[in-house]
Amino acid sequence: MAAMMKAAVFVAPGRIELADKPIPDVGPDDALLRITTTTICGTDIHILKGEYPVAPGLTIGHEPVGVIEKLGANVRGYREGQRAIAGAICPGFRSHACQDGHPSQDGGPLGHGYKPMGGWRFGNTVDGTQAEYVLVPDAEANLAPVPDGLSDEQVLMCPDIMSTGFAGAEAGNIRIGDVVAVFAQGPIGLCATAGARLRGASLVIGVDGVAGRLEMARRMGADVTVNFREVDVVEEILRLTGGRGVDVAIEALGLQSTFEAALRVLKPGGTLSSLGVYSEDLRIPLGAYGAGLAEKNIVSSLCPGGKERMRRLMNIVASQRVDLGPMVTHTFKLDDIVAAYDLFGHQRDGVLKVAIKPS
Amino acid sequence: MAAMMKAAVFVAPGRIELADKPIPDVGPDDALLRITTTTICGTDIHILKGEYPVAPGLTIGHEPVGVIEKLGANVRGYREGQRAIAGAICPGFRSHACQDGHPSQDGGPLGHGYKPMGGWRFGNTVDGTQAEYVLVPDAEANLAPVPDGLSDEQVLMCPDIMSTGFAGAEAGNIRIGDVVAVFAQGPIGLCATAGARLRGASLVIGVDGVAGRLEMARRMGADVTVNFREVDVVEEILRLTGGRGVDVAIEALGLQSTFEAALRVLKPGGTLSSLGVYSEDLRIPLGAYGAGLAEKNIVSSLCPGGKERMRRLMNIVASQRVDLGPMVTHTFKLDDIVAAYDLFGHQRDGVLKVAIKPS
Amino acid sequence: MAAMMKAAVFVAPGRIELADKPIPDVGPDDALLRITTTTICGTDIHILKGEYPVAPGLTIGHEPVGVIEKLGANVRGYREGQRAIAGAICPGFRSHACQDGHPSQDGGPLGHGYKPMGGWRFGNTVDGTQAEYVLVPDAEANLAPVPDGLSDEQVLMCPDIMSTGFAGAEAGNIRIGDVVAVFAQGPIGLCATAGARLRGASLVIGVDGVAGRLEMARRMGADVTVNFREVDVVEEILRLTGGRGVDVAIEALGLQSTFEAALRVLKPGGTLSSLGVYSEDLRIPLGAYGAGLAEKNIVSSLCPGGKERMRRLMNIVASQRVDLGPMVTHTFKLDDIVAAYDLFGHQRDGVLKVAIKPS
Amino acid sequence: MAAMMKAAVFVAPGRIELADKPIPDVGPDDALLRITTTTICGTDIHILKGEYPVAPGLTIGHEPVGVIEKLGANVRGYREGQRAIAGAICPGFRSHACQDGHPSQDGGPLGHGYKPMGGWRFGNTVDGTQAEYVLVPDAEANLAPVPDGLSDEQVLMCPDIMSTGFAGAEAGNIRIGDVVAVFAQGPIGLCATAGARLRGASLVIGVDGVAGRLEMARRMGADVTVNFREVDVVEEILRLTGGRGVDVAIEALGLQSTFEAALRVLKPGGTLSSLGVYSEDLRIPLGAYGAGLAEKNIVSSLCPGGKERMRRLMNIVASQRVDLGPMVTHTFKLDDIVAAYDLFGHQRDGVLKVAIKPS
Repeated sequence: MAAMMKAAVFVAPGRIELADKPIPDVGPDDALLRITTTTICGTDIHILKGEYPVAPGLTIGHEPVGVIEKLGANVRGYREGQRAIAGAICPGFRSHACQDGHPSQDGGPLGHGYKPMGGWRFGNTVDGTQAEYVLVPDAEANLAPVPDGLSDEQVLMCPDIMSTGFAGAEAGNIRIGDVVAVFAQGPIGLCATAGARLRGASLVIGVDGVAGRLEMARRMGADVTVNFREVDVVEEILRLTGGRGVDVAIEALGLQSTFEAALRVLKPGGTLSSLGVYSEDLRIPLGAYGAGLAEKNIVSSLCPGGKERMRRLMNIVASQRVDLGPMVTHTFKLDDIVAAYDLFGHQRDGVLKVAIKPS
Repeated sequence: MAAMMKAAVFVAPGRIELADKPIPDVGPDDALLRITTTTICGTDIHILKGEYPVAPGLTIGHEPVGVIEKLGANVRGYREGQRAIAGAICPGFRSHACQDGHPSQDGGPLGHGYKPMGGWRFGNTVDGTQAEYVLVPDAEANLAPVPDGLSDEQVLMCPDIMSTGFAGAEAGNIRIGDVVAVFAQGPIGLCATAGARLRGASLVIGVDGVAGRLEMARRMGADVTVNFREVDVVEEILRLTGGRGVDVAIEALGLQSTFEAALRVLKPGGTLSSLGVYSEDLRIPLGAYGAGLAEKNIVSSLCPGGKERMRRLMNIVASQRVDLGPMVTHTFKLDDIVAAYDLFGHQRDGVLKVAIKPS
Repeated sequence: MAAMMKAAVFVAPGRIELADKPIPDVGPDDALLRITTTTICGTDIHILKGEYPVAPGLTIGHEPVGVIEKLGANVRGYREGQRAIAGAICPGFRSHACQDGHPSQDGGPLGHGYKPMGGWRFGNTVDGTQAEYVLVPDAEANLAPVPDGLSDEQVLMCPDIMSTGFAGAEAGNIRIGDVVAVFAQGPIGLCATAGARLRGASLVIGVDGVAGRLEMARRMGADVTVNFREVDVVEEILRLTGGRGVDVAIEALGLQSTFEAALRVLKPGGTLSSLGVYSEDLRIPLGAYGAGLAEKNIVSSLCPGGKERMRRLMNIVASQRVDLGPMVTHTFKLDDIVAAYDLFGHQRDGVLKVAIKPS
Repeated sequence: MAAMMKAAVFVAPGRIELADKPIPDVGPDDALLRITTTTICGTDIHILKGEYPVAPGLTIGHEPVGVIEKLGANVRGYREGQRAIAGAICPGFRSHACQDGHPSQDGGPLGHGYKPMGGWRFGNTVDGTQAEYVLVPDAEANLAPVPDGLSDEQVLMCPDIMSTGFAGAEAGNIRIGDVVAVFAQGPIGLCATAGARLRGASLVIGVDGVAGRLEMARRMGADVTVNFREVDVVEEILRLTGGRGVDVAIEALGLQSTFEAALRVLKPGGTLSSLGVYSEDLRIPLGAYGAGLAEKNIVSSLCPGGKERMRRLMNIVASQRVDLGPMVTHTFKLDDIVAAYDLFGHQRDGVLKVAIKPS
């Protein structure tokens, strides 16, 4: 009889519950990770609400920090007992999509292998990380040892939001001396703010409507913040830039209003780097887009994964370039994850990120 | 008393007429070009209809081929009597926008100098090329001698549509072996088709609804063509690519329908390269955009100008990489330009481009 | 008792001989390819001469065209009996080097996984392709089906020299309208010539000292050729370019003289794209390098591999963008491979590439 | 009779002396800048020694901070009395070289206009900045107002060494999480160290042989420093990187030994970004270069100029991303410039940069 573990599973819209599931068997290319810390992502709230469909019974969560419990027979380069993380996206690097430069869009080995978001497996197409154990697929490609001296909390952002937020700065191709505005200062936007600063922007403008988030934005690297509840964001940013507009605008929420404001404050020739998950058709206003002639490019990114990405992000943490620790505002036991969902889903008590601890 | 010349001027919506105007004085940085051949652009039709406002009395046209009649005192590197062209866009290369990599968005020396389309001067903010003479601003930056042996017709596409169409292929960053679909095979789309082939695409798919244009598309480099009046374009392109979609989709018309089809046939991670001039807000369908997570980038280009760009394009013509000559379907005297507008504006008689000859 | 096959093995410097070896066992990630055509590469001649050391008894060769005889248990997306090729370089795409963008430099799973040329396995660190059968490692990443209608000879260049030569054009970042000089018109140089043309150069200059190769260069896309035995190459290229120099110079031989000439004809700001395998220290002349201030960049490439690269290259062949078939000047049975080495090694009879057929 | 000014002029090898020269006339495209602070560059020492030839009587110096005394008739966008700087390199942005992306290699309007270092004019081909006044050529392209609140010393590095050092980081295309080694921590190397940090490197290693410079390196952003007089640099850097090597190595001195060490510590696939001015042929060791197959790219940069670059660099200073002020170790009156050359040329008293003040 298989050993059992606790896991947070999607039951039906509105219901994610703790359940007992067998600890998974380890295939030759897999690794079994004993979770020491994981977290809840905004995407999980979409799943909870039934807005993003997953199979009933699936374990949710895609941000693992843990200890290698067991390695598959083919997995070289690690040892059991080692602390490790894996990206929220676990690309199959053999695929056409990966070899073509789009690992997050890998759709498996058959056909040509492009599938939107196909690289996202944990808590989407396979059991996720809000559990005592998780099986890491293609572990040799996806498992990354945690450098000595880093705590779980310090690397907890690496699998998803740090990778995503930084990707916003990278895809925007921020250059030394750029002015960057980041729309929304939730966890992803805060990481984008930190990433913009890290890439050499000379002015980082953080936008949000919650004072606590704006304060955190300044802590993460924003030079100035704009509260959209108090001023007209577009006018204020044009004022701050002497009418020039920004070189790069990062959208980190997924609403028409933030997307549109980002486009409006962008200089001709600038780049709108989109990170948000939208829930309805987007509209590009003719004027802000210069009728197609203003050379405003719109790029988007989906959380880069793989062990090399994780290695780089953890090194950024280890070298103290950014300290994302303050973003972990609450800690829960896995046993209490339903309460954690409640707090996080309703954005109560100034929550930014919660740490979930199986033991 | 100033010598006079004939010029096609915008009078009022619906009226572009031939008028007598003084031959312009030549400032120290200018060159006076005696026009030998020019043409009418789709943009000029927007001006004619009053959809794009210009000052009454302005000479229209932005595609000059001619002979240097007189050089300003500061203009070095040319001689009077030399055949030359200038780009439709004449950037002021001293501007912040140019030095920052966006010459078509140059808005002059004051402030920080970004203005959407600011580099477009001929027939927009200064007198244009549908005249016996045109003044080329900042001539040392913008005037390009025509290589020996090339006819006016051979270089007539360089100032605008060849530069624009090729920019669509370049901005899409087409790689060797890419599959590219070009939506609409008017003059710009045909040049984008030629440009996609020139950049190393292994399959170029031309889309239009007019048989004659599809035939011309094959002549310009399309491997296959799709008539949207006969088949469902999206289904057909997915069929042609085995379900994979295209690496790069070029929009060359400016309609919601072509923009949307371009997005739908694009693989995750692909690039939509937009060239069209839109006349209403654009809509990005949620599904085709993967809710923002499919990493489909949307880039746009505005006709690169300057003497180096013109030099490169004319060299492509001179080395017989492409032959855009067949696109010149009709020739008119400048005296008959009103008739030329009528033919071109109504797309009669299979017209693609008209050559206008002052003498 | 294992079934046996014939294979060309390195015995000692100066001796590559046909031997009987067991047909290899197929591991879970491997595929066994029955070779129908392979070839000899210049690198194999270095091995023959003992200039590049390999283990005695190793089967030589790294350019496989064949039929899938047997698939490992984990290899999905193929079927036995399918015609397929694999790249000369078979990267392990799980490695840090691959995920970091350097698949040819992949050094395996341990440590950080960078090893110069580490992705080159066939005929280097594992048994190669000059045999009746070859084992393709990590087959799901490296095996590429041959499109219907293409002959063995048509795709025989894809695994190595087409991938390498085209990489020279790609790494040089050739832009539309560039002038490109390719130094040496052996098989790699000829492919670089074809690649330069395919990327949109307006003038491709082929350099060699053998009339037959210069003729082939013109056939592969060179606009003009320069025979270094007849003229001073540097002077002639500066003359051809009006003193401007070339935008990109591709070195395709591996000698100081070609490297140096490439640097001398390069415009300030241009790129020297190196493909050659050098056998002694290189010298950068101070003057040609502008003392470090002329912004002449020197890049190099090692044959990109993987199934996506092979797919793209075969599509280029299938769409008739280039016809490398004429480069196969001779055909030998595998039984006669020693004679083939003799002919190819001594460059007799105008040989460019030989086809080797096991049956 | 023309008004006179003091200027430091090259007389003969070994002799730079203060002389009286007429204050230059202001042409229509020029601006006359009254120098408030300038400095001496390592290049000036080469000129002093006669190693880099300039015309006798030329005013030396290329790093101007001053006040606009008089604007030429055509120069728009500035006002007299405004504080301003100009880059050490003053490109003529109308040239083919500039429009082609290589402003520092602009060789003027005739021919195709590439000339190594052609954009360097001050103290090279026209009178320089070690004087009471300097004439800024093409002022509208090259003059950049100093933001309020910044001192002369704070922006004194922008015209040359900050632009050069940062260009080393930019040309190396440093990515988030890269490991970067900077060879030599003189003024340029210190700026490269600051630039590497600013671009998101996770580990910056500063190399030099002088304790004071290593201390300054740590202040400018180096995480660790290596003294080549105490350890074997190559071994130490390989040790620090766990055998992996560095992603980017920046050469900031101009010697074979530093160039070679940079190549040796570079991972396969890495980039050597060269900033040094070499004085003899460079040698690329075969092994460190992987015989051409290790894909180690060698790029070089020459101090980007122009008003947009200056604007960006001053904004970096204004936003306190870096503080290069501590690099100004000494201040001299222009009257005492011969003594300043003596101190700086002999690297006495821990000198890094000297400020020269005309009044």
